Amino acid sequence: MANSKFEYVRNFEQPDSLLPNTWIVVRIDGRGFTKMCAKYGFEKPNDRRALDLMNAAAKAVVADLPEITIGYGISDEYSFVFHKSCSLFERRASKLVSTIVSTFTANYVYSWPTYFPDAPLTYPLPTFDGRAVVYPGVQNLRDYLSWRQVDCHINNLYNTTFWALIQLGGLDNKEAEKTLAGTLASDKNEILFSRFHINYNNEPEIYKKGSVVFRDYELVDADSNQVAQEMDNLAEPVQQSKTQADKDKKRRSKARVVVEHLDIIKDDFWDRRPWILSGKPGKAPKET
Amino acid sequence: MANSKFEYVRNFEQPDSLLPNTWIVVRIDGRGFTKMCAKYGFEKPNDRRALDLMNAAAKAVVADLPEITIGYGISDEYSFVFHKSCSLFERRASKLVSTIVSTFTANYVYSWPTYFPDAPLTYPLPTFDGRAVVYPGVQNLRDYLSWRQVDCHINNLYNTTFWALIQLGGLDNKEAEKTLAGTLASDKNEILFSRFHINYNNEPEIYKKGSVVFRDYELVDADSNQVAQEMDNLAEPVQQSKTQADKDKKRRSKARVVVEHLDIIKDDFWDRRPWILSGKPGKAPKET
Amino acid sequence: MANSKFEYVRNFEQPDSLLPNTWIVVRIDGRGFTKMCAKYGFEKPNDRRALDLMNAAAKAVVADLPEITIGYGISDEYSFVFHKSCSLFERRASKLVSTIVSTFTANYVYSWPTYFPDAPLTYPLPTFDGRAVVYPGVQNLRDYLSWRQVDCHINNLYNTTFWALIQLGGLDNKEAEKTLAGTLASDKNEILFSRFHINYNNEPEIYKKGSVVFRDYELVDADSNQVAQEMDNLAEPVQQSKTQADKDKKRRSKARVVVEHLDIIKDDFWDRRPWILSGKPGKAPKET
Amino acid sequence: MANSKFEYVRNFEQPDSLLPNTWIVVRIDGRGFTKMCAKYGFEKPNDRRALDLMNAAAKAVVADLPEITIGYGISDEYSFVFHKSCSLFERRASKLVSTIVSTFTANYVYSWPTYFPDAPLTYPLPTFDGRAVVYPGVQNLRDYLSWRQVDCHINNLYNTTFWALIQLGGLDNKEAEKTLAGTLASDKNEILFSRFHINYNNEPEIYKKGSVVFRDYELVDADSNQVAQEMDNLAEPVQQSKTQADKDKKRRSKARVVVEHLDIIKDDFWDRRPWILSGKPGKAPKET
Repeated sequence: MANSKFEYVRNFEQPDSLLPNTWIVVRIDGRGFTKMCAKYGFEKPNDRRALDLMNAAAKAVVADLPEITIGYGISDEYSFVFHKSCSLFERRASKLVSTIVSTFTANYVYSWPTYFPDAPLTYPLPTFDGRAVVYPGVQNLRDYLSWRQVDCHINNLYNTTFWALIQLGGLDNKEAEKTLAGTLASDKNEILFSRFHINYNNEPEIYKKGSVVFRDYELVDADSNQVAQEMDNLAEPVQQSKTQADKDKKRRSKARVVVEHLDIIKDDFWDRRPWILSGKPGKAPKET
Repeated sequence: MANSKFEYVRNFEQPDSLLPNTWIVVRIDGRGFTKMCAKYGFEKPNDRRALDLMNAAAKAVVADLPEITIGYGISDEYSFVFHKSCSLFERRASKLVSTIVSTFTANYVYSWPTYFPDAPLTYPLPTFDGRAVVYPGVQNLRDYLSWRQVDCHINNLYNTTFWALIQLGGLDNKEAEKTLAGTLASDKNEILFSRFHINYNNEPEIYKKGSVVFRDYELVDADSNQVAQEMDNLAEPVQQSKTQADKDKKRRSKARVVVEHLDIIKDDFWDRRPWILSGKPGKAPKET
Repeated sequence: MANSKFEYVRNFEQPDSLLPNTWIVVRIDGRGFTKMCAKYGFEKPNDRRALDLMNAAAKAVVADLPEITIGYGISDEYSFVFHKSCSLFERRASKLVSTIVSTFTANYVYSWPTYFPDAPLTYPLPTFDGRAVVYPGVQNLRDYLSWRQVDCHINNLYNTTFWALIQLGGLDNKEAEKTLAGTLASDKNEILFSRFHINYNNEPEIYKKGSVVFRDYELVDADSNQVAQEMDNLAEPVQQSKTQADKDKKRRSKARVVVEHLDIIKDDFWDRRPWILSGKPGKAPKET
Repeated sequence: MANSKFEYVRNFEQPDSLLPNTWIVVRIDGRGFTKMCAKYGFEKPNDRRALDLMNAAAKAVVADLPEITIGYGISDEYSFVFHKSCSLFERRASKLVSTIVSTFTANYVYSWPTYFPDAPLTYPLPTFDGRAVVYPGVQNLRDYLSWRQVDCHINNLYNTTFWALIQLGGLDNKEAEKTLAGTLASDKNEILFSRFHINYNNEPEIYKKGSVVFRDYELVDADSNQVAQEMDNLAEPVQQSKTQADKDKKRRSKARVVVEHLDIIKDDFWDRRPWILSGKPGKAPKET
C-alpha cells in the first residue's frame, strides 16, 4: 500500500539549520518555577537542593552530548554551548533544542527524589522551554556567558539582601522592596553587613557565581587569547583523521564532567582550560 | 551594577514566530528507541505497556496545553496540533516545540514505574526530539494526519507478519525479511491467515489505527466539510468577548481528554467532532 | 584546477523557500521618491505621467512572469501576487523578489524617456526595493489588497484636498496641514466642494482606485466565493497533463495584460474574473 | 476612514534580519544571459564592452551604498560585500538584496547605449537576480572571494581555449568540447601555445582575474592579518563619536571608487588595503 497520496505534506517542513562556523548556545528556562518554588517549599533566597538537582541534570546533558563544550547555570536556567565546528543533527535548531530540553527534563524528573526525598513530585510536573542563539565570534560567546554571570551576581546580591531584610529584619515584602529601591551594589553590601553582620563575600560561591559544567582535564598555562584567535580564524570544521577522531572521542568520554563555581568573565578561566574553546580534549588530570 | 556592556548579545536572538493563520503540527520522536526496546524488553511487534505510557504522556500534554486541538500517536512518535488561530507564545517555534517535548518527557519518565513496575529506568534515560511544521489549509492538516495513520497501518501489518514468521513460524530475522520482500498488503494478510490463522482485521485497534487524543464532547451530526470551509475562510484569530473566552476556557478545562483508536482518514471522525477543527468547545457528553 | 578548497563556502547559503500552498505577495516601493518628485517636477497631488510609467513597468513584469496572477499599484509602490500553487524558482524568496524588482526597474528606466521626454534621467537613478509576504487563505490575500486600496483612497482624498488648499486656496504647507488636522473623510469632501467646487467623486478613477494589472479574458457570471473556497481547499499544486499545461500556457501568453482602475474590495471584481484566483486561464474576449 | 479592519495583514510579514556581526555578501547574476549574448552579439570568449558595462553598474552600486566595502565581478555576476558592522536597513535581507539588484539594473539599462551604441536594447530587457549569504569570519569571506576568483580563472582558461579551437582552429562546438574533455590546466595552456601561439599569461588581466571594485586610498605596508584578526575580535558595531562618523563619511564620499583586476586570493591585496576589512577610510591618495 503506497503512502504517496499524502506524502506531499513532507514538503511543508522548512529547514532550520543554524549558520555554520558559529557558536550555538541553547538556553533552557524553568516554566512557571515561581509556583514550583512555593509548591515544594524551596528555601529563600537560594535552595541548595534545587540547584544541585539543576546541576545533576546539566551534568547528564553534557555527558550525553559530547559536542557540548561548556554549560552555565543560574537559578532555574541553564545555557549549553556547542562548539562552532559542531555538526550534530546537521545543526538543526529544533533537534538541538528539543534534545537538550528533553534530556534535561528527563534527568530532572528522574533525579528529583534524590534531592527532594520528602517532597514527591505531583502534577503538573516541572518542565523547561528552550531556544538556540548563534554567536559568530569567541568574544560574542564569552560576552554572552559574562552577561549571564553578571545577571547571577546582580540577582543574588539583591535576593540575599531582600530575604535578609525579611527573614532576619522582620520586614514584609513591600517594606523590603521599598528599602532596596534605587540602591547600588555598595548599598546592599552595607545593609547586609551593618544590619545583619553578613559579609556578602563569604556567601557560598555557588550562589554568587552560578555553576559551570565542563570536562575536566589538566590545567595549563596556555594563553587562551591565542586559542580564541585560532578559533576565530577557524573557517570550517577541521577534517580529522579517523584515528585522531576516535582517540579524541575516547579521551572525551573518559573525562570527568565537573560542576564548579568559578569566575568565567575574566581570562583566567579560559586561559587555563584551552580545551573549552579549542574543542580538542586536554590531558587527563593526575589521579590523586 | 549595570549589565549593559554585555547586553548587546541579546540582539543575536533571531525571531522564529510561525506564520499566522496556519495549523501548527509539533511532532516528537523517541531518540534511540530501538536500543530502549532491547534494554527494557519491549514485546514484539507491539508492547502494550509502552503504548499506554506514550498515551498517558500525550494526554498530560493535551490537558496542560488547551491550545492543542488534537494529538495522534504511533509507536514512539506523537503529533500535536495547535489550532490555526492559536497565539500561544506568540507562535514561537522553539517555545512551542520545547514546551511540548519537555512536558511529554517529564510525564513519560514520571509515569514509567506505573507501566513498567518491574523494569526501573536506568541511564541513559528515554528522551524525545521534536520539530514544528505549519499547514495552511484544513486539507493539508488532514492529509498530514492521514499520512501518519497510513504509515501506522503499513508498519503494523509488516511488523505483525514479520514477527509471526519469527515467533510462530520459527524463521530468523533474515529469513522473515526475505519472505516479506516485495509482498503486497494482500500477501501479508494471506501469510498471516493461511500460515498462522491470524485474521489481521481482528488485531487490536490500538495497533492498527494508532491513538487519537482529544477533548470529549457530545457527538453531533454536523457536516465537518462546512466546519473545514469555515476554518479555511477564517482569516485571523477571532476576537471573542472576555466573557465568552472565559466560558470556553472553563468548558475546555472541564472536558475529559480521551484516547481512542479511530479512523481519522475518513470524514466521519471529523464530521461528528466539529470542535476539533472549529476550536470551539462542544457540549459536555451526558453522564452515563 | 580544482576549486574544492574554497567550495565549502557554499554551505553558508541558507534556504529561503516560502511555505507551499500560500499566496505570495511581492511588494516593491520606490526608494527616495520624495526627492525624485522634486527633482523631476512631478505634478501634485498626482502626476499622470509617473503613474503611467509605473503601470507600463508593472505590465512588463506581469507579461514576463505568467505565474503572477494580479498586480496592484498606487503612488510609487506595486504589489504582485503569485498564485498559491506557484512553484517558480522553488518559491525562493530572494529569487522571486529580486527578479520582480529587477524587471520592474529595468522597464522603468528604459521607458522613462517615453513618459518624460523633456526630463532626461540623471544620477542617482530611480530604484525600488522589495519584500515577499505569504498569505495562507484567499480572504487574507483579498484583505491585503483591500488594505492597499483603502490606503490609496485615504491618501488620495487627503492629498487632493491638501493641494487644493495650496494650489487653489493660496495656503502654504503648514496652513493646509493645520486645516486638515483631525478632519474626517466627509470634512475633506466638504472642503473640496464648498471651497473649490470640486466633487471628489468626479476625480479620475486612476487616482481614486489605483491600478490593477491582470490578464484579460471574457467576463463571466461565476460566483467567486466558490472559486475562493475551491482555492482554499486546494491542498497542493494540481498536476496537469503536459498537454493541458501547454494549452494553458499558450492561452495565457496570448492573453492581453491590461491595466484598469476598479474596486477590488467588493466581490464583483473577483466574481466576474474567476481566473485570477483559480489560476486557470479564461476565455479570450471577443474581438471588437 | 480607518484602515484598521484590514491592517492585520501586516502581521504576516516575517522578519529577515541577517545575523549581526557577520559579513554580508550579496551576489547578483544575469538572468538568461546566454540568450542576451546571442541577441546582442557578445564577442567570444569575452566581450569587453559587456564587462565594462557590468563594471560601470557595479561602480555606481558601490558609490551609492558606502556600506559596501568591496565588490567582485566576473562574467554576468557580481558580488558585493557589506562590512560585518553594517547596520543598513537593520540588515534585512530583502531590503539589502533588492536595493542592490535595483541599483545595478537601473545603471545597467541606463548605461547600455554608452557601451553598445549600435545595439539598442529591445524587450525583454536584461535583468538580474540576487541573494544574500552571511559569513562569520574574515577567513570565510576571503575564501568566498577566492572561490569566485578561482572560478573566473577556470572558466576563462577553458573558454579561451574552447574558442581558440573554434575561431582559430576551425573546429565546431562538439569537436572543441571533445578536445577539452578531461584536460588539465597545463594541457589547455599547451594547446593554446603550441597550436595557436597564444601565451595565456599574456591575456588581459580583466579576463584572467575578474574585476575588483573598492574605494581608493593610499596603499600601506600594514599587515592585514592583524586587521583580519582585529575584525574577528570585533564583537559588535563600534560606537563612533558623531564627529568621527561624519569625518569618515566625508572621507568615504570623497574617495574615488576604482575598478581593478588584481589577485585577491593572496594576502598582498588585503595587506596593502587594510581599509577594506577594517571599514575605516584610509588616506586619500596623492594627486598625480
